[in-house]
Amino acid sequence: MRFVDLIEKKADGFSLSKEEIEFMVNGFTDGSIPDYQMSAMMMAILQKDMNDQETADLTMAMMHSGEVVDLSDLPGVKLDKHSTGGVGDTTTLVVAPLVASCGGTVAKMSGRGLGHTGGTLDKLESIPGTDVEIPLDQFKNIVRQCGVAVIGQSADLDPADKKMYALRDVTATVRSIPLIASSIMSKKLASGADGIVLDVKTGTGAFMRTVEEAKRLAKTMVSIGVLTGKKVTALITDMNQPLGNAVGNALEVKEAVELLSGKIAETDPLFQVCMLLGSHMLMMAGIAEDAKTAETMLKERIADGSGLKRLQQMISLQGGDASYLTVENMEQLTDVRKRMDVAALCDGYVSSMMAEKIGTAAQMLGAGRAVKTDVIDPSVGLVMKVRCGDYVHKGDPLCTLYVNDETHLKQVQKLLYEAIRISEVRQQVNPMIHAIITAEDL
Amino acid sequence: MRFVDLIEKKADGFSLSKEEIEFMVNGFTDGSIPDYQMSAMMMAILQKDMNDQETADLTMAMMHSGEVVDLSDLPGVKLDKHSTGGVGDTTTLVVAPLVASCGGTVAKMSGRGLGHTGGTLDKLESIPGTDVEIPLDQFKNIVRQCGVAVIGQSADLDPADKKMYALRDVTATVRSIPLIASSIMSKKLASGADGIVLDVKTGTGAFMRTVEEAKRLAKTMVSIGVLTGKKVTALITDMNQPLGNAVGNALEVKEAVELLSGKIAETDPLFQVCMLLGSHMLMMAGIAEDAKTAETMLKERIADGSGLKRLQQMISLQGGDASYLTVENMEQLTDVRKRMDVAALCDGYVSSMMAEKIGTAAQMLGAGRAVKTDVIDPSVGLVMKVRCGDYVHKGDPLCTLYVNDETHLKQVQKLLYEAIRISEVRQQVNPMIHAIITAEDL
Repeated sequence: MRFVDLIEKKADGFSLSKEEIEFMVNGFTDGSIPDYQMSAMMMAILQKDMNDQETADLTMAMMHSGEVVDLSDLPGVKLDKHSTGGVGDTTTLVVAPLVASCGGTVAKMSGRGLGHTGGTLDKLESIPGTDVEIPLDQFKNIVRQCGVAVIGQSADLDPADKKMYALRDVTATVRSIPLIASSIMSKKLASGADGIVLDVKTGTGAFMRTVEEAKRLAKTMVSIGVLTGKKVTALITDMNQPLGNAVGNALEVKEAVELLSGKIAETDPLFQVCMLLGSHMLMMAGIAEDAKTAETMLKERIADGSGLKRLQQMISLQGGDASYLTVENMEQLTDVRKRMDVAALCDGYVSSMMAEKIGTAAQMLGAGRAVKTDVIDPSVGLVMKVRCGDYVHKGDPLCTLYVNDETHLKQVQKLLYEAIRISEVRQQVNPMIHAIITAEDL
Repeated sequence: MRFVDLIEKKADGFSLSKEEIEFMVNGFTDGSIPDYQMSAMMMAILQKDMNDQETADLTMAMMHSGEVVDLSDLPGVKLDKHSTGGVGDTTTLVVAPLVASCGGTVAKMSGRGLGHTGGTLDKLESIPGTDVEIPLDQFKNIVRQCGVAVIGQSADLDPADKKMYALRDVTATVRSIPLIASSIMSKKLASGADGIVLDVKTGTGAFMRTVEEAKRLAKTMVSIGVLTGKKVTALITDMNQPLGNAVGNALEVKEAVELLSGKIAETDPLFQVCMLLGSHMLMMAGIAEDAKTAETMLKERIADGSGLKRLQQMISLQGGDASYLTVENMEQLTDVRKRMDVAALCDGYVSSMMAEKIGTAAQMLGAGRAVKTDVIDPSVGLVMKVRCGDYVHKGDPLCTLYVNDETHLKQVQKLLYEAIRISEVRQQVNPMIHAIITAEDL
């Protein structure tokens, strides 16, 4: 088999066979296929697309390019969730312990934040002592004890994805739907999940700008599930504004603790998305028969405090100081040198809150990384005081900044005024949930 | 300017500006744009194409990536011709001296053969003593003395094309029309030509399999001429069978000498194509007003022997022994250990003579190179005894092999029987000339 012939086949719009896709992924991973051939292939894939079978074959080949975590000795359906790059999205910290408190098994491998998006590992590490680099056996033991643990991905997981992603980034092939879908799903499958609820973001702050695009990506990933024998459901949710109000590491943990303590309204977008994610995970595990039953269970676990307790237990088992995890004590972790409001410059309706710019503003305050080697300040960030559609008067706070280092403050404020637009007329506000895609929708 | 943004622009089907194309060519030539980005761009170009302005800008940028030969101190329009990879195509050796003998200026830079196609430099070197690596000043002096010289391209000519071609070859992007057109035209323009007659081959032995494709390539190259202020005409000729009867280096020189000596019929395809190429060159130079006048001039120069004399003079000035250049003396240069016929296996009409396979057969006898470093045997090759449409009896010679090394003889014979098919019914024979494209046809 010559790889140049496979490039030509794809460039001509033909489908690649399982063997051809394995030849490609193995050859690229071991270096026998050079970058310059792989980038031509990925451009051909961007242009000519892949069908569902090719995408599933690609996912499986990538999954098997490195270590595959075996969680089969844990009880029940191994549940996972994944969100495609959100801002103010602290759902994992809410949903994972909540689902575990209902009897689900959540052995989750997660990532770090880069650019304008946050990462669950960074949020966990804002709780003093918490260890996210735990050996597999110990990780499984924690899951056995409390039903939930969240750690970082092993460095040996899915090397094909690491190499392919780095190359896509510099060759304008990031946005190919089969390449995005296989990148996400190969990592999830390699980390041992057999039931995955996806949250595909759409809007100005998301990679999928339109609901149509997000649906295509969602359907592609659900189809990978069908073709590889895994349970996959995808929500399509709005990312025209941040999901929660907090953007920053300890600030988002605090918001998760508030939600688990019953301090956040059921009408709140973060609450709604958590309920949807959680209920689909419970249905996948066979713990609830329908969404209504599942949601009732989840709300009970908030009301009786067992969801929060499960989060505390997990943090404790992962070496962290769980005593911080109450609404009152979290104040200590978000104690900064200066809190200051960004005030409305005029009266009017909030017409946009561009999530990407808001995420970048938090990153510039020290809550995130511009490059991988940047060090994070866990306590800084910002908390939104308004949402799209709200009416504000001149001088009203739009958001509160949590600041330790004022170096970029001017730029942060400028960015936030660009992100949060106020207009005289109230504009249509997007629904929070655009669609739910299951295997039946294919 | 970030190159990844330009890749994305082209991947989305937008046109690149002159500045963007220059950034690309200069960056790729100096190494600041890596292969893996350039291959993604070339795949995007293959998929989304380039318009005529982009292709002309690309051609000019490539032309200026290295040395640009200045022939402005030579008299008249500097004429060149180029054929897109033919088999048995010895037109340069006929047309260049013939046009010079009519008063044209032919300062031609040529290439070597690779794979199934021959190269003019290799043919010239089959004449003992002939030097094709001549310094520019001396080259111009020869042109001043006899109106014609043919040498190899300078190593500093069009480095962008060398790098781009090598990459296209391994990334399945060779067949992009704008990339082919700019590759050919940038070299021609860099070698100082201001009037170029192109022979675009079409058929089984050619890169452009259909007349439609060949027309697209021809129009693209003629358009480059219009946009860069050069005179360009393109013939589209048939390459379903070899153009001349001889395939091999000295054998093709011999055929050229025969033609210039009036020994080849005017109805012969090689004769016809030479007349067309030559007459368009003469019209470009303003030496003849129309094709009929031009053809009459060319035929006179054959009849009075001045075309052949001009070839002898050129070879002499390039250090070669011109005494070989008569029909009789050429026999010495094609003197091989063994001449043998490949005989028809049955009665019938010759229905195909696949040029590519015939070219490969000659290469395997030692007349060409499989890889660039192979050494050529100038005297070997083959001479076709039939053409498509001819009736043959079993045992009739289809071609004569000129053999020194019998290592691959069995394989060569097998290949020739595959190439030369005989059928019971006479099939339609393609016309030799499919079209002539000038600036008026755009």
